[in-house]
Amino acid sequence: MLDRIRIVLVNTSHPGNIGSTARAMKTMGLSELYLVAPKKFPHLQAMELAANAADVLDQAVVVDALGLAIADCTLILGTSARSRTVPWPVISPREMGETIKQLPPHGQIAILFGCEQSGLDNEALQRCHWHVQIPADPRYPSLNLAAAVQIIAYELKMASLEASLEEKSMLGQWDHRLATADEMEKFFSHLQQVLIEIDFLKITAPRKLMTRLRRLFLRTQPDVMEINILRGILTAVQAAPRDICNPE
Amino acid sequence: MLDRIRIVLVNTSHPGNIGSTARAMKTMGLSELYLVAPKKFPHLQAMELAANAADVLDQAVVVDALGLAIADCTLILGTSARSRTVPWPVISPREMGETIKQLPPHGQIAILFGCEQSGLDNEALQRCHWHVQIPADPRYPSLNLAAAVQIIAYELKMASLEASLEEKSMLGQWDHRLATADEMEKFFSHLQQVLIEIDFLKITAPRKLMTRLRRLFLRTQPDVMEINILRGILTAVQAAPRDICNPE
Repeated sequence: MLDRIRIVLVNTSHPGNIGSTARAMKTMGLSELYLVAPKKFPHLQAMELAANAADVLDQAVVVDALGLAIADCTLILGTSARSRTVPWPVISPREMGETIKQLPPHGQIAILFGCEQSGLDNEALQRCHWHVQIPADPRYPSLNLAAAVQIIAYELKMASLEASLEEKSMLGQWDHRLATADEMEKFFSHLQQVLIEIDFLKITAPRKLMTRLRRLFLRTQPDVMEINILRGILTAVQAAPRDICNPE
Repeated sequence: MLDRIRIVLVNTSHPGNIGSTARAMKTMGLSELYLVAPKKFPHLQAMELAANAADVLDQAVVVDALGLAIADCTLILGTSARSRTVPWPVISPREMGETIKQLPPHGQIAILFGCEQSGLDNEALQRCHWHVQIPADPRYPSLNLAAAVQIIAYELKMASLEASLEEKSMLGQWDHRLATADEMEKFFSHLQQVLIEIDFLKITAPRKLMTRLRRLFLRTQPDVMEINILRGILTAVQAAPRDICNPE
């Protein structure tokens, strides 16, 4: 899916932003960059800010007019912060990802970013199927150009990963299997026994002590290694007084 | 929700990244910035790249050590690109947003970002409840610092927009506030002390015992009542041998 995405920067003023855009793209697995009439390119500052994404800059296609950058594309999306006199269909970056994920698997998709000062002009915006609006704080919605590319690229990456992310749970990479219910119950029995032996359950017990301890330890879903450590600690607590009173 | 978020930059090398971070934050409605031992700050370049987010820089709190930046926080999240020897719970920025949305409505939330060269060190990572990993292309996962902040801030903004549309979650009804980082550290010190006293940490300690115990208890996000119970148990363990050997 990411191979079908073309990032198109229109009339970019600062070459540093082109470099930062290349870096933002590459970190998210995007590589196709078109530059429409950039003010300064190629430029040392673009190279510097691209860091290890110089290959994206090297392969960038520079054209004179927007039409040339999008001619072969089947879907054109324009990023825009403003509402327009004639309302256009506006989607969020997340909806953009969802939408692209569900498209037929052919055809290039262009995502347009305007210049730093004023964004895309009306002519460019009216070439777009949809407008993509990044939700920003209304008091200061002015994202840096490469920061906007980073968010869009991130949502594209998320959309492309989603299927596999759904399969993989948070604990998919864990090092030990989770404790079974039986292991948990044995731990709780052991814990309760120790709390009685050390005179804690009787003397100072807040109400519903064991209930609170169950909630605490169940919530954290201990793995079997962690339960073994906890059981080991309980056993050491039980052994400690004897060691002290009857040293051998 | 966004008022509870504290962005913490640790050992930042380039002042420009501090400025870009301030801008990224403000565009998404975040304002609380802590700087732990920045190499150069204040600095002209930070001001330049902050653009109209100078107020975020002006209000930034500079501290010498990470502990001072997070002591009063009830949830610590560390951004990390690497996998660790002892796996920590890892969530995506989106899962982070979902999680924070469902927390009880009190307590500050710190999100840590390491230095440009190597990210957060192990000590900082082990202070975190969870690690947040931005899904990036494995061939070039190296996001610019402010770009990483932009993505995290964007997901927080998205979550706060969704939260305003949703009803209160189950956890909104929790009975006690969550423990602060400071309270957690005191608990870990106490726990370690007791494990030494009962001869557990020395004799049978599996490798990285304290690391595993930190992970276990941070993951479960204890509330203050639960921490008081755990501290009470530790104190009872310490008292137990004396009660048995020297009954009065």
